[in-house]
Amino acid sequence: MAVTIYDVAREANVSMATVSRVVNGNQNVKPATRKKVLECIERLGYRPNAVARGLASKKTTTVGVIVPDISKSYYAELSRGIADIATMYEYNIILSNSDKRATREVELLEDHLGKQVDGLIFMSDSLSDEIRAEMATANVPIVLAGTLGDNTDLPTVNIDHEEAAYEAVKKLIDNGHERIVHVSGPMSRDINRLCKKVGYERALKEAGLPIIDEFFIETDNTYDDAYEKWAVIRELEEKPTAIFAGNDEIAVGVLNGIRDEGFSVPEDYEVICFQHTLLSRAVRPQLTAIIVPLYDLGAVSMRLLTKLMNGEEVEDVNVILPYHKEVRQSTK
Amino acid sequence: MAVTIYDVAREANVSMATVSRVVNGNQNVKPATRKKVLECIERLGYRPNAVARGLASKKTTTVGVIVPDISKSYYAELSRGIADIATMYEYNIILSNSDKRATREVELLEDHLGKQVDGLIFMSDSLSDEIRAEMATANVPIVLAGTLGDNTDLPTVNIDHEEAAYEAVKKLIDNGHERIVHVSGPMSRDINRLCKKVGYERALKEAGLPIIDEFFIETDNTYDDAYEKWAVIRELEEKPTAIFAGNDEIAVGVLNGIRDEGFSVPEDYEVICFQHTLLSRAVRPQLTAIIVPLYDLGAVSMRLLTKLMNGEEVEDVNVILPYHKEVRQSTK
Repeated sequence: MAVTIYDVAREANVSMATVSRVVNGNQNVKPATRKKVLECIERLGYRPNAVARGLASKKTTTVGVIVPDISKSYYAELSRGIADIATMYEYNIILSNSDKRATREVELLEDHLGKQVDGLIFMSDSLSDEIRAEMATANVPIVLAGTLGDNTDLPTVNIDHEEAAYEAVKKLIDNGHERIVHVSGPMSRDINRLCKKVGYERALKEAGLPIIDEFFIETDNTYDDAYEKWAVIRELEEKPTAIFAGNDEIAVGVLNGIRDEGFSVPEDYEVICFQHTLLSRAVRPQLTAIIVPLYDLGAVSMRLLTKLMNGEEVEDVNVILPYHKEVRQSTK
Repeated sequence: MAVTIYDVAREANVSMATVSRVVNGNQNVKPATRKKVLECIERLGYRPNAVARGLASKKTTTVGVIVPDISKSYYAELSRGIADIATMYEYNIILSNSDKRATREVELLEDHLGKQVDGLIFMSDSLSDEIRAEMATANVPIVLAGTLGDNTDLPTVNIDHEEAAYEAVKKLIDNGHERIVHVSGPMSRDINRLCKKVGYERALKEAGLPIIDEFFIETDNTYDDAYEKWAVIRELEEKPTAIFAGNDEIAVGVLNGIRDEGFSVPEDYEVICFQHTLLSRAVRPQLTAIIVPLYDLGAVSMRLLTKLMNGEEVEDVNVILPYHKEVRQSTK
């Protein structure tokens, strides 16, 4: 049986992402780790290219990647994970930006299929009826990376956003907060409406706390909008004492609103968020956050796609990756 | 004569990037601006797809994009500019990450040419002899986007990094500083060695200030390395009073080093940098910065490539885009 990247990762006791980085010469690996991984590759006789050459079903050696906006860190990091595994298996990537517009997504899907891609990775926050219908008739495998796949038979790779949101809000409740604002991305997106908001409300309910409509603040997912929304939060009749933000860009917007008015984090307000970028660590105070394994979401999606393109047996086509919470300075 | 995106941009008095965003439905456009651009498109009769269909030389309708690392904001933003114009002219993009490794760059170039791309956009910080040789024999147009093209006949789109660095350092000198540290990215990269460092030294020389070797601090271009380098800066025998950083990720690393030790910016140290990401605005104090028009570098590169692929007359194949300096809170 061929040695896989999983075997190397297990043997070296590192993540698959790290093995991929080493194999692809990415410099973001500590020298000691690189040495260990290379030793394991040598010892196990792992040969990524040999695996790739063995892929029987390879036709155009091209995979389509439909991404909302490559200029957003979230998708840039996911795409790098996809690209590294694609390189390892000698696939090229055709990359297109959809801006999450449903009609554009359908056009791109048709376009990529017309280009005879061997498979496709799709990223968005929701699946429209049109895109579902289009995907159902596709004749190549499609994997949804970091995209909700409720009510679909398509393979997915994701984290449990609902549980992660629950855990984040529970942390604030455990710290004694009863009035917690949720600053969210757009409600039009499943990931916000069906996961993060649901986890937020579950934590409140479980603690016997009321769900207050005014404590739910919707933004367009940008730093600037979140910064302006601070003016709304400040004027609330019931004064909140903690913030749960849908991502770190939103969190930093609110954080700066708070601090530019002379309030302190975490003394006056505690803040917790999902981490998508370096922002969480680079601001002061550093943000307590749910770390989303973006690179791995991309890498695992592409690895799953190579298996499906090769007609391999896949036990579980709905992969849930672990996340972890990192407590920093924005909570007590 | 066909109406171009330039005509629309001029008429609407907005950047080409903004027109492109409107045409592609990108949401990061103010409603009033969108309205104005759409009116100009209507009035001028601009038809992007009609232009695209007229391209005679179109073959695979695919363009190769070789990027150092798509997970870095700098390249993600450039790539989005490339992709938007590609979409407008109905090209698909094959995107590959090189990690700036010379051998990998050559492999990717051969690979893309083998895939019969109609043209290619190349990004890196330097051009190795091997890649120059390979490019010289390519049978399709290649544009260097945000990449130094000294000693090459290839088309380039860039800003004047040397002049921008000069201007940044001159600002610090004008504020009365005589001991200015330059925290740089790797010297192996032309853009750092031949541009930013040269501009830094020119400003010092012009002001009659000495060039002190210890005031040049090299980093690996990451936040974490820059953060650690603060310990080196702090221990310098001659105490500096201002920092010129090669980009905002480096600047924020140094800024946090300064502040985590209880010093203040701009009171104890003034800081100026090149802006590549949201970080410049999101940190406190906000960073005074040279704004690099990343999206436009990508968009103009791709537009230039479409002209070259179509055999159109191009007056100037070495395009220098304007940058501007934004004075914020990290300088006085």
